[in-house]
Amino acid sequence: MKHLIPLTLLASTLAISGLVRADEQVTYPDGYRNWTHIKTMVLHAGHPLENPFKGIHHVYGNDKAVQGTKTGKFKDGSVLVFDLLNYLTKDKASTEGERVLVGVMVKNNARYPATGGWGFEGFKGNSKSERLVTDGGQSCFSCHTSQKNHDYVFSHWRK
Amino acid sequence: MKHLIPLTLLASTLAISGLVRADEQVTYPDGYRNWTHIKTMVLHAGHPLENPFKGIHHVYGNDKAVQGTKTGKFKDGSVLVFDLLNYLTKDKASTEGERVLVGVMVKNNARYPATGGWGFEGFKGNSKSERLVTDGGQSCFSCHTSQKNHDYVFSHWRK
Repeated sequence: MKHLIPLTLLASTLAISGLVRADEQVTYPDGYRNWTHIKTMVLHAGHPLENPFKGIHHVYGNDKAVQGTKTGKFKDGSVLVFDLLNYLTKDKASTEGERVLVGVMVKNNARYPATGGWGFEGFKGNSKSERLVTDGGQSCFSCHTSQKNHDYVFSHWRK
Repeated sequence: MKHLIPLTLLASTLAISGLVRADEQVTYPDGYRNWTHIKTMVLHAGHPLENPFKGIHHVYGNDKAVQGTKTGKFKDGSVLVFDLLNYLTKDKASTEGERVLVGVMVKNNARYPATGGWGFEGFKGNSKSERLVTDGGQSCFSCHTSQKNHDYVFSHWRK
């Protein structure tokens, strides 16, 4: 028990510095390609989010997340994946290119209270270990706050 | 047994006339939105297939079909869905619009010998009953023949 206070202090320090404790890190969403595809969107050059989100992105969800996109309430354990690919246009057809990154949102209200109950992470290209989020998800969350009425999620289920 | 020959003749007549017997019709692929998303492509105005395929299309497969996109051999029971949506571009972002049609390919080598073992069908918009294929799939197949080495399927699995 004598380590309790120092560890708590450490956790606070990490939180303030924008880091996330190892046991709070968002894990790579293995198998998401077999989850449900929710929607697709293309961001072109000149879009405010073109760096780093230019390209075609697919959004996938596990069952809890899919339910959330229908109800606007996401249960703990909901996972959404933002799969960003380069986008090549030739001969009047646009096709998928190489993967740019895999973004992940994991719902855990107790673990991520500072970012709406969501943990945010990005994995570079096809890497399952090279992480892109360095501020504890604050920059992700600052954009997602606009979707507060849909539990901070942009994606809605369509027919 | 006395109806055997007339029925066979009828089937031949229907096949020649481009119709498909009711019991050979491709059924609507209920639940495909929860199948595996294989790829997405956008066909723009001016593409040779713009009528009727202009828009953003997602390709989904059941488990057998997904396996086929990896091996190039599709087992009976493989079903691929081509989900075509309108495509709206505004403020440097392109988003999904209304559904144009749902195309379906069903593998059944015994049932569809004239079209590579594939049954082809299209369903208009969000309808599960309004059918679009009127020639027994010959026009679909004529384009898919270019993919003979991949069992007549354009989609390949990507990482």
